[in-house]
Amino acid sequence: MDLLGMKRFKRTRIKEKVGLPPGTLVHVGERKTEKIKVTIIDYDPKNYQEKEVERIEECFPFKDKPSVTWINIDGLQEVGITEKIGVHFGIHPLVLEDILHTGQRPKAEDLGDYLFIVLKMIYHDENEDEIIGEQVSLILGQNYVISFQEREGDIFNPIRIRIRNGKGRIRKAGADYLAYTLLDAIVDQYFLVLERFGEKIESLEEELVTNPTPKTLQVIHTLKRNLILLRKSVWPLREVINALERGESPLITKPTGIYLRDVYDHTIQVIDTIETYRDMVSGMLDIYLSSLSNRMNEVMKVLTIIATIFIPLTFIAGIYGMNFKFMPELEWHWGYPVALIIMLTIVAFMVMYFRRKRWL
Amino acid sequence: MDLLGMKRFKRTRIKEKVGLPPGTLVHVGERKTEKIKVTIIDYDPKNYQEKEVERIEECFPFKDKPSVTWINIDGLQEVGITEKIGVHFGIHPLVLEDILHTGQRPKAEDLGDYLFIVLKMIYHDENEDEIIGEQVSLILGQNYVISFQEREGDIFNPIRIRIRNGKGRIRKAGADYLAYTLLDAIVDQYFLVLERFGEKIESLEEELVTNPTPKTLQVIHTLKRNLILLRKSVWPLREVINALERGESPLITKPTGIYLRDVYDHTIQVIDTIETYRDMVSGMLDIYLSSLSNRMNEVMKVLTIIATIFIPLTFIAGIYGMNFKFMPELEWHWGYPVALIIMLTIVAFMVMYFRRKRWL
Amino acid sequence: MDLLGMKRFKRTRIKEKVGLPPGTLVHVGERKTEKIKVTIIDYDPKNYQEKEVERIEECFPFKDKPSVTWINIDGLQEVGITEKIGVHFGIHPLVLEDILHTGQRPKAEDLGDYLFIVLKMIYHDENEDEIIGEQVSLILGQNYVISFQEREGDIFNPIRIRIRNGKGRIRKAGADYLAYTLLDAIVDQYFLVLERFGEKIESLEEELVTNPTPKTLQVIHTLKRNLILLRKSVWPLREVINALERGESPLITKPTGIYLRDVYDHTIQVIDTIETYRDMVSGMLDIYLSSLSNRMNEVMKVLTIIATIFIPLTFIAGIYGMNFKFMPELEWHWGYPVALIIMLTIVAFMVMYFRRKRWL
Amino acid sequence: MDLLGMKRFKRTRIKEKVGLPPGTLVHVGERKTEKIKVTIIDYDPKNYQEKEVERIEECFPFKDKPSVTWINIDGLQEVGITEKIGVHFGIHPLVLEDILHTGQRPKAEDLGDYLFIVLKMIYHDENEDEIIGEQVSLILGQNYVISFQEREGDIFNPIRIRIRNGKGRIRKAGADYLAYTLLDAIVDQYFLVLERFGEKIESLEEELVTNPTPKTLQVIHTLKRNLILLRKSVWPLREVINALERGESPLITKPTGIYLRDVYDHTIQVIDTIETYRDMVSGMLDIYLSSLSNRMNEVMKVLTIIATIFIPLTFIAGIYGMNFKFMPELEWHWGYPVALIIMLTIVAFMVMYFRRKRWL
Amino acid sequence: MDLLGMKRFKRTRIKEKVGLPPGTLVHVGERKTEKIKVTIIDYDPKNYQEKEVERIEECFPFKDKPSVTWINIDGLQEVGITEKIGVHFGIHPLVLEDILHTGQRPKAEDLGDYLFIVLKMIYHDENEDEIIGEQVSLILGQNYVISFQEREGDIFNPIRIRIRNGKGRIRKAGADYLAYTLLDAIVDQYFLVLERFGEKIESLEEELVTNPTPKTLQVIHTLKRNLILLRKSVWPLREVINALERGESPLITKPTGIYLRDVYDHTIQVIDTIETYRDMVSGMLDIYLSSLSNRMNEVMKVLTIIATIFIPLTFIAGIYGMNFKFMPELEWHWGYPVALIIMLTIVAFMVMYFRRKRWL
Repeated sequence: MDLLGMKRFKRTRIKEKVGLPPGTLVHVGERKTEKIKVTIIDYDPKNYQEKEVERIEECFPFKDKPSVTWINIDGLQEVGITEKIGVHFGIHPLVLEDILHTGQRPKAEDLGDYLFIVLKMIYHDENEDEIIGEQVSLILGQNYVISFQEREGDIFNPIRIRIRNGKGRIRKAGADYLAYTLLDAIVDQYFLVLERFGEKIESLEEELVTNPTPKTLQVIHTLKRNLILLRKSVWPLREVINALERGESPLITKPTGIYLRDVYDHTIQVIDTIETYRDMVSGMLDIYLSSLSNRMNEVMKVLTIIATIFIPLTFIAGIYGMNFKFMPELEWHWGYPVALIIMLTIVAFMVMYFRRKRWL
Repeated sequence: MDLLGMKRFKRTRIKEKVGLPPGTLVHVGERKTEKIKVTIIDYDPKNYQEKEVERIEECFPFKDKPSVTWINIDGLQEVGITEKIGVHFGIHPLVLEDILHTGQRPKAEDLGDYLFIVLKMIYHDENEDEIIGEQVSLILGQNYVISFQEREGDIFNPIRIRIRNGKGRIRKAGADYLAYTLLDAIVDQYFLVLERFGEKIESLEEELVTNPTPKTLQVIHTLKRNLILLRKSVWPLREVINALERGESPLITKPTGIYLRDVYDHTIQVIDTIETYRDMVSGMLDIYLSSLSNRMNEVMKVLTIIATIFIPLTFIAGIYGMNFKFMPELEWHWGYPVALIIMLTIVAFMVMYFRRKRWL
Repeated sequence: MDLLGMKRFKRTRIKEKVGLPPGTLVHVGERKTEKIKVTIIDYDPKNYQEKEVERIEECFPFKDKPSVTWINIDGLQEVGITEKIGVHFGIHPLVLEDILHTGQRPKAEDLGDYLFIVLKMIYHDENEDEIIGEQVSLILGQNYVISFQEREGDIFNPIRIRIRNGKGRIRKAGADYLAYTLLDAIVDQYFLVLERFGEKIESLEEELVTNPTPKTLQVIHTLKRNLILLRKSVWPLREVINALERGESPLITKPTGIYLRDVYDHTIQVIDTIETYRDMVSGMLDIYLSSLSNRMNEVMKVLTIIATIFIPLTFIAGIYGMNFKFMPELEWHWGYPVALIIMLTIVAFMVMYFRRKRWL
Repeated sequence: MDLLGMKRFKRTRIKEKVGLPPGTLVHVGERKTEKIKVTIIDYDPKNYQEKEVERIEECFPFKDKPSVTWINIDGLQEVGITEKIGVHFGIHPLVLEDILHTGQRPKAEDLGDYLFIVLKMIYHDENEDEIIGEQVSLILGQNYVISFQEREGDIFNPIRIRIRNGKGRIRKAGADYLAYTLLDAIVDQYFLVLERFGEKIESLEEELVTNPTPKTLQVIHTLKRNLILLRKSVWPLREVINALERGESPLITKPTGIYLRDVYDHTIQVIDTIETYRDMVSGMLDIYLSSLSNRMNEVMKVLTIIATIFIPLTFIAGIYGMNFKFMPELEWHWGYPVALIIMLTIVAFMVMYFRRKRWL
Repeated sequence: MDLLGMKRFKRTRIKEKVGLPPGTLVHVGERKTEKIKVTIIDYDPKNYQEKEVERIEECFPFKDKPSVTWINIDGLQEVGITEKIGVHFGIHPLVLEDILHTGQRPKAEDLGDYLFIVLKMIYHDENEDEIIGEQVSLILGQNYVISFQEREGDIFNPIRIRIRNGKGRIRKAGADYLAYTLLDAIVDQYFLVLERFGEKIESLEEELVTNPTPKTLQVIHTLKRNLILLRKSVWPLREVINALERGESPLITKPTGIYLRDVYDHTIQVIDTIETYRDMVSGMLDIYLSSLSNRMNEVMKVLTIIATIFIPLTFIAGIYGMNFKFMPELEWHWGYPVALIIMLTIVAFMVMYFRRKRWL
């Protein structure tokens, strides 16, 4: 579960980046897909058009069309594509750099003609039972949205279907509403991932009670670490969406602001839940440690009881196992039974003592 | 004790919600009651009318009556009812969505014509000895309050009685005062639940001193977790009521503002108490761990004393149990008593040693 | 040490309060005194009058006298008295409710004609060696102060003496200065209580070093819990006095504001000290736990040394205690002394080993 | 190391203070010097005059001289001196009270004609290897500075020398610059004290690695407690100097403001370092505890290995030490060597087992 | 790894500094280079000039040239150089003092004609496998940047190359852009250092799972301490760059502001990562402690199982090793096999017991 691609990011960053002037475009990050795929969806309340393009130049005419255009790019490794888009749509080199350098902190920037939003999309890969983090960048212009993903995914598919079917507000609303639906889809994924965490915490709690093992500790530790990483990637989202929702940019219309408020509420809820889970996992570690101590106490009691009862008895047996010539007891007829009775008395006394101490 | 219905919420949310446009009305949450029950109470200082309606349309005429109307809906599963109310009373689809999706973070939103308040009602179910969380949504309009509950409950009954009897301010005041009394009733329930926690903490503290067991640990853990969940559901309440009390909405009159200030004070007190309880429960865990260590020390001391006294004695007995042909001591007449005296001397020495170490 | 009367408060609150409209006057809390005692002190720079009244109506004429009047009421159980004062002095029902419901969070409210201040008085009861918390409410009007206490106490006596003697500013200043002196007296009590805590912490620290016992743990726990409760009751005081000192109410004159600033500084100092004590007590628990571990190590070392030395020796003795027919060593003349020498060698080796490990 | 004289302060405060009207002048605190010493330094760019006065009245003429006057008073026990200064220089009774009551929280107050600054001077007493805290109060008027110390010290000596020599800005600048140099000298002392802490932490860290003992724990505890107390006394300094530096008082000229900014930076650095040290000491306690556990594991392993190897062997020896009449093995010629071989096999097996568990 | 040179700084500071007036120039810190090296780079879009100067006076003519001049000084020990620069470029004595006193808290100050920025450069020394901290001070004037380093380094080399090659914006932009690139280069180094930490944390995590040793503890401790120190040096950077980026100084042009925003984002990311690492390392310590407890439990179980099985058996053997004259069992023909069977039964019972307890 390499939530943030953090390690890889930095290693490559330094090697490739140092010495280059700021704004130089180099793709930094894992190559997560083989082929880059560019799709265009163009719509207004009446018309709808969807196509996959071979050459990025095919997108350019859509910039000035009044209809809403959504250009989606899966795969970042071909720097040329991003560069061409940058030139044609007039995007600042630092923004392009941020798009290509996966491992950005989520942020939203108002650059006048367009808004730049970068965030982490996090989802659960059913095949590998892994949680995967991926950087998504959005450029929101007057009547277009350009989205950059690290690999092809199906999270945005329901939105495509909604646009095709013309259901709901989406066909009637502008590019800002489209950007909102994309954000909403991403934040919804967080709930899915949190649900996984929730399930794991629940099953852990049962395990903790019934049968804690060293493996339980391992799972707690992994959970804790992943929550730390998840938190790191969600916290900034709060400011991002808040910045958008305050609606200072003319690119975001007031009705869309209300919808963004809704996403904001979801983000807060995600953050709340992460904090709650962290508190819970912390608590579980304490319980685990206490359980260990409890068990140790248990083990030690057994040892102590056995040892404390038998060691004195063995000693007495040892006494009468000595080979001294003159040991009167050995000659007595009732010597053996008396010795046994003494031993039993000691046992009885010990058991009483442990009872009083509540060890038995 | 599934305080927040969190788990169920998210599982259903994802399955049913993903792919639908925002504002689509689907009930998300547990179906907590069989039949939906809609009651209307309509009053002004002189008149009073109360009825249970079969068809939701019967409520609509009350919208424009100058008297105060309280429409209470128990049960959320029939989406149609909420939808019709939404259409007739002009409520934003996102608000309706929030009403139906239980698991909302408490919040208050000013939507111009009406205020939307959603919060958690928490109460103790005497039958099942459980604490139950339920989402309550309030729509406060000019002269009406619509309240949505997940199941029928008796928390609002005293308010109904007060309206019937015409006692106090309630019949003379407006819809905002009615909304306040509902909020007040909900916050009062928190005190009841906290009282339960307080009792549990107190009895735990006694147990901790007299006889801590692994079960004590279990109880501490459950308490801690529930306080974490409770906290998550109460913290946002602070902002909610503060937002209302600041009185920026014309729907809330100044005299009611003073009453809301009172509810605000109660909320702060609830939060303070939760934090205090959390600190206390944390402290109890530390004490528990220390107690375990203390006990372990105790156990180990007993073992060590017994072992340290008898192991050397047993060794001496072992020496004279050897079968060497030529062991002069065995032949001596006083060999046996001398051996016993040596053993006693060792015991005396050991006891002194343990005394000096304060182990005895 | 039931610092805040929290438990009792809530239990009664719920039983008596639920179902009643807000502003209904019911005394909620422990009945701490048998008889209610009402005293009036009325003074101006020249005149001075002090009397205990039987009927509360005797107080009413003082409302409009230009001289400063201090009405002090010890005991809250007779709701009628509070109610009559409320009616005559024009006090809001919610304020009266707060006066009667002990267990309020400290707060100051500006209600136009008068200021309402409620806070916790905390003092040490020498007889029972207990710390006692009590709610004190103050109503500060134009030329009167009404104070409500749960029981008769002697904390305000020095103030009475100062008024009688006419020493200092008090006789020359107005009602706001009187309210300040009452607050000052209450905050001074916190220092006394903190001094107790300080002494206890100091003696604990010595105990921790010289001879930690399970009882030490108990004391640390109690101290920690009481500091948590004390903190809960002092923190809000900060806002209370700050609110008064900012001097937005015309009832508080500027010269008195400077004196309130002084009380504010004291409050901050109290809070600082509580936080410092909490940190210290937390640290003590850590030290306690570490001491336990240290002791356990000590105990285990003793056991291990004894066992590790004697178990092998006993084994050797056991070997030569076997009854095999053909054991050549047993027949040797020097068998016994050689066996003893082997044992001594083993002991020497073990002692060296433990020395190197620094266990001896 | 009684950093803050806290205990003594409060004990005396209560006994002497309660019942007196506010502003009554009583010296509260330890009497730290035998004789009060009053020195005056008066200078302007050209002239310089320094003398020790017998009667405080000799200071009074300097109040209205245009040259800068520094009146320094060592020792607070003669209340009369402070009182006379208060009357002549027009200082508020509460300020005088604060000067005499050592144990104040550091603060700066603007009282119009003069600024009142009270703070903790902390320095290391080389003779007793102790860190000593002392209250220093400064009154900054238009052209005079009055400083009150609890005892005679040499921290301000370099400043006196600089004034005498006329080196640097000091003779050319006003009273505000003098006050700044006094503050700077006090804050510089904090660095010296922190250096002590730093050295101790460093030597502790080495000890922790090479040879942790119960005494190490004691030192960690003392360090932690002293850092808590130091922090309490430094934190408020931040606000104090910030308040001065914001330059709202006309008594502080703009050029001096820049110098105060420098002191402010130093204060922040002191606070940062204290926080860092606290984190480090906390970390050391964790390491200490872990080390203890490590050692315990070590000890237990030795015990377990010895016991696990020899207990079964001793048992076998015990078997053949039994005196049953009919034990065929005892009669066998190779019985004894076979028994020894069996024992050796068990040892070999055990050693292998422990090897696999990495205990050996 | 003496990240902040903290110790040395303060020791020398006190000895050399106390008693001197503020603004006296003394180099405080380690002498990290033998010879001071002053290099000048002067450029405008067309021309470019680079030279190493012998006498600092050679720099002075560049002050008033319209082209951008970068004066870089490696080594601080020759106070005269700094002083001369200070006089010629009109720099405040306190600023010069800060430049020479290594160990400053990072800060940015606007002094009208120029900006003063001081920060920590941190990099990894490959030769000694150490992380090294060094103070870098920047003076940003209208058309010049003066940088002070403690020793010669190669971090700024890529920038020199970019200027030489005239690649990117740098030759076209002003002095503010040059200052930005220096800041950017320094912040980039933090990523490199964090990468080291990241790698160490990762390898530790593996070690923690597979084979925790006391050395692991040592590494965790060092990591924790270094993160504390690193944090102390990075946190203030946030304010520094934020202050610059807010663009209140006319020395920073708007386009450069956008680039500074980028550095600001990087700083936030560095801080986030440090916090995340701290959380992770804290978590690892908990896991380590729990692992120790787990192992101890393991060890104790082995001991207990062995002891509990064999101690009773040895006792039985001891019984029949007694030499009483009259012990009927000894005479029985089947005595020996029956005794063995009894022993086996006990073993079987014990094993069952341990199985049920899940110890086996």
